[in-house]
Amino acid sequence: MSDVTVVGSGSWGTALSMVLADNGHRVSLWSRSIEQVEAINQDRRNPKYVPDIVLPEGIKATADMAEALNNTEVVVVVVPTKAMRQVLPEIRKHLDKAVLFVHASKGIEPETNMRISEIIEEEIPEALRRGVVVLSGPSHAEEVCEKQPTTVTSACEDDELAREIQDLFMNNDFRVYTNPDVIGVEMGGALKNIIAIGAGMTAGLGFGDNAKAALMTRGLAEIARLGLKLGANPMTFAGLGGLGDLIVTCTSVHSRNWRAGYALGLGKSVQEVEKDLGMVVEGIRTTKAAYQLATKLNVEMPITEELYQVLFHDKPVNEAVAELMGRVKKQEVEDLKLGDPLNHLEP
Amino acid sequence: MSDVTVVGSGSWGTALSMVLADNGHRVSLWSRSIEQVEAINQDRRNPKYVPDIVLPEGIKATADMAEALNNTEVVVVVVPTKAMRQVLPEIRKHLDKAVLFVHASKGIEPETNMRISEIIEEEIPEALRRGVVVLSGPSHAEEVCEKQPTTVTSACEDDELAREIQDLFMNNDFRVYTNPDVIGVEMGGALKNIIAIGAGMTAGLGFGDNAKAALMTRGLAEIARLGLKLGANPMTFAGLGGLGDLIVTCTSVHSRNWRAGYALGLGKSVQEVEKDLGMVVEGIRTTKAAYQLATKLNVEMPITEELYQVLFHDKPVNEAVAELMGRVKKQEVEDLKLGDPLNHLEP
Repeated sequence: MSDVTVVGSGSWGTALSMVLADNGHRVSLWSRSIEQVEAINQDRRNPKYVPDIVLPEGIKATADMAEALNNTEVVVVVVPTKAMRQVLPEIRKHLDKAVLFVHASKGIEPETNMRISEIIEEEIPEALRRGVVVLSGPSHAEEVCEKQPTTVTSACEDDELAREIQDLFMNNDFRVYTNPDVIGVEMGGALKNIIAIGAGMTAGLGFGDNAKAALMTRGLAEIARLGLKLGANPMTFAGLGGLGDLIVTCTSVHSRNWRAGYALGLGKSVQEVEKDLGMVVEGIRTTKAAYQLATKLNVEMPITEELYQVLFHDKPVNEAVAELMGRVKKQEVEDLKLGDPLNHLEP
Repeated sequence: MSDVTVVGSGSWGTALSMVLADNGHRVSLWSRSIEQVEAINQDRRNPKYVPDIVLPEGIKATADMAEALNNTEVVVVVVPTKAMRQVLPEIRKHLDKAVLFVHASKGIEPETNMRISEIIEEEIPEALRRGVVVLSGPSHAEEVCEKQPTTVTSACEDDELAREIQDLFMNNDFRVYTNPDVIGVEMGGALKNIIAIGAGMTAGLGFGDNAKAALMTRGLAEIARLGLKLGANPMTFAGLGGLGDLIVTCTSVHSRNWRAGYALGLGKSVQEVEKDLGMVVEGIRTTKAAYQLATKLNVEMPITEELYQVLFHDKPVNEAVAELMGRVKKQEVEDLKLGDPLNHLEP
């Protein structure tokens, strides 16, 4: 039994708090919203994010970071990427000993192109962290709250830390696998949101399952190309944090990135879409970051590039999709050389 | 403009005939059913398989194999795997010169564990075939008939033949890529039906998107493991004929393999399911063939094994799924050694 702090009470932070509480851990769930704190503590509900779920007694919500971190051993950070730079210094202020950090957010910072684990390492001094573990995989929060079978990856270069987090979260319904490839798991989780926006867009334009499957297949290939260039293990993209997460995000109406793309496909503007959803659409910021990285590292990412033009330079959606679909005929697998994996994934 | 024969007037044979006719080729569509021949020639309809589609004038149906093959340059075989041994000798009988064979069927023969291209090579003497090309990919027939954007793979060791078939089928809506890896494309297309039955089964049992994504991810890994053992290029399974086809078959209500699994999940027997669907469920036969191959070659295929027990030894569906979901926690990517791809895909 451990003392765990979950920072961020959105749907995923709430779902992970439930898993931890169900496993017998004492969970402090930090939220910036006093309203949410009261709803959770008094009604055992989080009406904004998971309205139909009754939360277990083991979760204690608080808006006081000092209280949330009191006696904690593990800090699970689950806030949108753009809130990281605000929240992490707050956490640092209240830590007096090294704790294990876990993050379950999926994005890349546009300005710096940093992954979340890199941001944590920059914001939290080494003396205050035992390590950073990434938790990622195909996991709609709503289904985790309903105890639907779910599998995720616990990623850390240090296998012992990955296993510690595996043990913390693992139960019969929530299966946790370990993977040493932090870069791959973080890039897979972040970049799949780009493809989800694209998949939603094709659906909004009235295209069917064949087009969606093609987009996802080509999308995973370009995700893997960028990941490889950054030092990831190519096989991670075929695993839960790559392919698995891509599938769940692109083929489900739960996904807010997919829904954002769908609305774009129907003809809404980016501004309207973000306002209508009322939640952060990570994939929009990630598209910018990925576009910058691809340009800098000279990696071919046609889907990301078209989406970037749509999201940031008002390119008409139908033109972008037409360009993607009408690319010149070419050989799917240009060359089989196992020593040069980039070759296998050419677009 | 070529003379092309399509053998088999199911939904996929009809859809491919439409693509070819739209591209300006003269298409003879062979069907065993006189009724279907008349409906196609008189009403421009194939009411049993694609009732809502009006077929172009360029398709001429016939039940006479000699007529169907008259003057033909390319023979596209699109019949269920179990009909191959009947249909190919009929074709052979009426050929007087070498033609290019294409097949677009997805299965493995249970008794011999042969791929379709191998069956064609066994049944058609070398003097009567210029080569065998495999056409495969994420492509619901219904959507192809509606001219929805679709991408497929034209696979042949001989790149010139792969390109010849690419040129024959390629148009703005139907994009064709080439791939020299015949084994990978055939195994991907056949084995994905096993996973589709499994995905339908989890849905029938009431599981959600998280479980489906996990099953598909682990499923692709075991497909790739068997494919690799048989000599396929591992990257083919990340392409259109692997991942792409898996996605379209597992996430769409069009798929008869998914529907068969769904009915099994709801508690129907295998016999009831096959009777209700009234169409061949390739995945059932393929499960047997893959199980035999996996056993013989000592390849770990847990999903295939559980499904085999359900389909052929009356194992209760919920027990099989519980076993799959409750496997011991382990490391997702055991080891990264590019020289030994089997290691990357361990279950």
